[in-house]
Amino acid sequence: MIKRRFNLKPILKPRSVAIIGASRDPEKVGHVILQNYLDSGYSGKLYPVNKNAEDVSGLKAYKSVLDIKAQIDLAVVAVPAEAVPTVLEECGKAHVKGAVVVSGGFAEIGRDDLQERIVRIADKYGIAMIGPNCLGVMDPRSRIDTLFLPTYKLSRPKIGGVSFVSQSGAVGSTVLDLISNEGFGLSKFISYGNAAQIDETDILHYLMDDDETKVIIMYIEGIKRGKEFIELAKRLTRKKPVIVLKGGVTSEGSIAAHSHTAAMAGSAEAYDAVFRQFGFVVARDLSELMWFAKAFDTENLPEGDRIAVITNGGGAGVLVTDKISMYGLRLAEFSEAAEKEIKGTFSKLVAAKNPLDLVGDAGEKRYSQAMSIIQNEKNVDMIIAIVLFQTPGADSKVAAAMIHYKTIIEKPMIVISIGADYTEVHKKMMESSGLPVYDSPAAAVASLRELLKYAKYRKHADNAGISGKG
Amino acid sequence: MIKRRFNLKPILKPRSVAIIGASRDPEKVGHVILQNYLDSGYSGKLYPVNKNAEDVSGLKAYKSVLDIKAQIDLAVVAVPAEAVPTVLEECGKAHVKGAVVVSGGFAEIGRDDLQERIVRIADKYGIAMIGPNCLGVMDPRSRIDTLFLPTYKLSRPKIGGVSFVSQSGAVGSTVLDLISNEGFGLSKFISYGNAAQIDETDILHYLMDDDETKVIIMYIEGIKRGKEFIELAKRLTRKKPVIVLKGGVTSEGSIAAHSHTAAMAGSAEAYDAVFRQFGFVVARDLSELMWFAKAFDTENLPEGDRIAVITNGGGAGVLVTDKISMYGLRLAEFSEAAEKEIKGTFSKLVAAKNPLDLVGDAGEKRYSQAMSIIQNEKNVDMIIAIVLFQTPGADSKVAAAMIHYKTIIEKPMIVISIGADYTEVHKKMMESSGLPVYDSPAAAVASLRELLKYAKYRKHADNAGISGKG
Repeated sequence: MIKRRFNLKPILKPRSVAIIGASRDPEKVGHVILQNYLDSGYSGKLYPVNKNAEDVSGLKAYKSVLDIKAQIDLAVVAVPAEAVPTVLEECGKAHVKGAVVVSGGFAEIGRDDLQERIVRIADKYGIAMIGPNCLGVMDPRSRIDTLFLPTYKLSRPKIGGVSFVSQSGAVGSTVLDLISNEGFGLSKFISYGNAAQIDETDILHYLMDDDETKVIIMYIEGIKRGKEFIELAKRLTRKKPVIVLKGGVTSEGSIAAHSHTAAMAGSAEAYDAVFRQFGFVVARDLSELMWFAKAFDTENLPEGDRIAVITNGGGAGVLVTDKISMYGLRLAEFSEAAEKEIKGTFSKLVAAKNPLDLVGDAGEKRYSQAMSIIQNEKNVDMIIAIVLFQTPGADSKVAAAMIHYKTIIEKPMIVISIGADYTEVHKKMMESSGLPVYDSPAAAVASLRELLKYAKYRKHADNAGISGKG
Repeated sequence: MIKRRFNLKPILKPRSVAIIGASRDPEKVGHVILQNYLDSGYSGKLYPVNKNAEDVSGLKAYKSVLDIKAQIDLAVVAVPAEAVPTVLEECGKAHVKGAVVVSGGFAEIGRDDLQERIVRIADKYGIAMIGPNCLGVMDPRSRIDTLFLPTYKLSRPKIGGVSFVSQSGAVGSTVLDLISNEGFGLSKFISYGNAAQIDETDILHYLMDDDETKVIIMYIEGIKRGKEFIELAKRLTRKKPVIVLKGGVTSEGSIAAHSHTAAMAGSAEAYDAVFRQFGFVVARDLSELMWFAKAFDTENLPEGDRIAVITNGGGAGVLVTDKISMYGLRLAEFSEAAEKEIKGTFSKLVAAKNPLDLVGDAGEKRYSQAMSIIQNEKNVDMIIAIVLFQTPGADSKVAAAMIHYKTIIEKPMIVISIGADYTEVHKKMMESSGLPVYDSPAAAVASLRELLKYAKYRKHADNAGISGKG
């Protein structure tokens, strides 16, 4: 069994942090990082290190990490590349446990020599090192935040169960910003850049056993230790869903990836096959990564492929039906009992068919009646509720009813709402209550398809008696 | 050559409108329609018709359209289905030229008899009739607005060049709302419901010759007169781009469509083949419909498939490169002259490669320098500028620079920006200036691919000497 090489706890849950390169200049990375720490409400000890200043942002500054008397768990390193080896040597001598090196100027611009040098130093002193050339880490629970982007530019997500691992800092920051916007919560964010020492396999290994992490999403451009990655993946994906977006899946993209994080990318086919074989959920675009993350964050796994659709717009029901069929899922056939109940409840107004078209003026009452029938319907495995808020009857009462049924229904249940401001208000209302809302039929149905695929993978793996729990 | 059967001018540019069924009850459709007219600033004459009221919303009400002395161009009919024949008879006797019948209760619930009756009446009196069972029409220029949805629920788009034809009212209202949100302008909106008399071919015929319409987007569930539709399409798509989303492309979806607007849908393959053969741009989802509409609304057609990418995020550049390759387009190879200029401008900071990675701290200066080099590069047919606003240097100056270059570059040029509030502000800034912004690599590259496909279709058609101009 693959052994865990590094302990990421000092990096993600540090009791004390030294920010090396903390600057008085608001334009400098080191300044923004310190400021974000101060703003985040981090409760541990914070030590700015700056060769040329007595104090930074109101805190006493130290010339070197060696001048700090207290034990330092984490050093955030934001100094020019050439200065990093010396800084790390000092960290080693000061018994610092973990380091996040945000500085660039290593393998990604051909300075493999410099990169190898800092790995040797980190290894020598037993420092667990993320980076270099990375955005760093964030954990809303410990309030650790090494990101050097101000919060007005990059919203920070609330506390939640999704951990996000990104080789690229740009993709990382973009997705973090989207996560806050979509209203789901974050467990950990780890942008690991050049992966000089700690790599994707190490990070996944840590997150596999992290109880705060329910779902893992990742953006990677290359895999450093293929054999170990696969060995770990076999256990990991049987324990938690892992959604992966691979950059550089085409030969053109692979060349672009190489000059970005110095990763050697493999072929699209090879990666895709490996990922799916080992139970990964594969996203082909940033938008899919977000769609799927939202579904896995909130939904239980489905028992089967039969979907019930309720709608206040006939055309939207048609489009969702098309997608269900195209994506290999099935429209549920309502049982006779359910059909009878629908007829009894709605008389002629609503035909007892799936999609259940509640007609354009449906309000809270009709939606609640429909959900109350469908929630117990045995022929239904998953539910899509289309609520078009442009229509006369759709308002916050309908949104509240959907939230109510979400809390009592164990089957996957998602909403499709598409539109501008009025819709957006209700979307946020539902999403902040854990009910995912999608803005296109394709997004909604593709997400349910991935839930089902993963459910089948898990069931197959469980039946085969292979457990990831151990 | 196919003859135009109906003149839609009295419907879209009426000088006088009777609202039949205008009600005092704010919950009634007829009330909302009248109120929307009053709010829209419609400058023609407005006549509420209500059997039981002396006045509605401060306007004198008439018992019947026959009581109105003035010439009525358009009657908006919002009375119960059973009353529609009588109302239309009266319209005919009053020489009303056009009618929009929003009332439902016809073929869509099996009342083909009632529907046939109103068509006979409309035909007898030469009334051009939209509907029944439709949302009606909107034209921001004439300020005609028969929609029975309040503006706080459904934002109305600004004046522009996109005409939107939708069989479904629900899809229609949703897309209208999205159009306002995405910041592009509307020429006409026509939701035609059951298409009892005026059908999709009639509407497209009118829009083909409408100088206010630059791009047509449509949602259809069925085609009533296949032969005429195709004959018209051949001319239409050589004159203007038409983006089509077909509901009911699967057999399951087709059944759903039938019970919705009583349209008999064909097979997915048949429709798709026909659409593409005749130069339609095919959207497979609502999101694609919006992506493509935005591109065709603002962009010129490209001369070739070579794309230049500039970015402030390496990972985003990798993902776009993947999509370019997967979607059959090409990354441009910069000429020696351009490479030399890039090296001279940026020294070692920016590698003279495509994607041109301006590095994570790029600001207005680097973006402007890059655009200034690329704008004249002969090996480039289309430009994608990735601006991730989470990064330190990306701000409103970068957005302003992009807008500046958009005004002077004739090649297709689009932006990718992905994120939450800070990004959204800049996205709106650029889009309101006619620079389309996409929120995923797939969306951006798929839109350019459709521009190129259509450009090739047009070039081929022009070379074949077949002109749609006549």
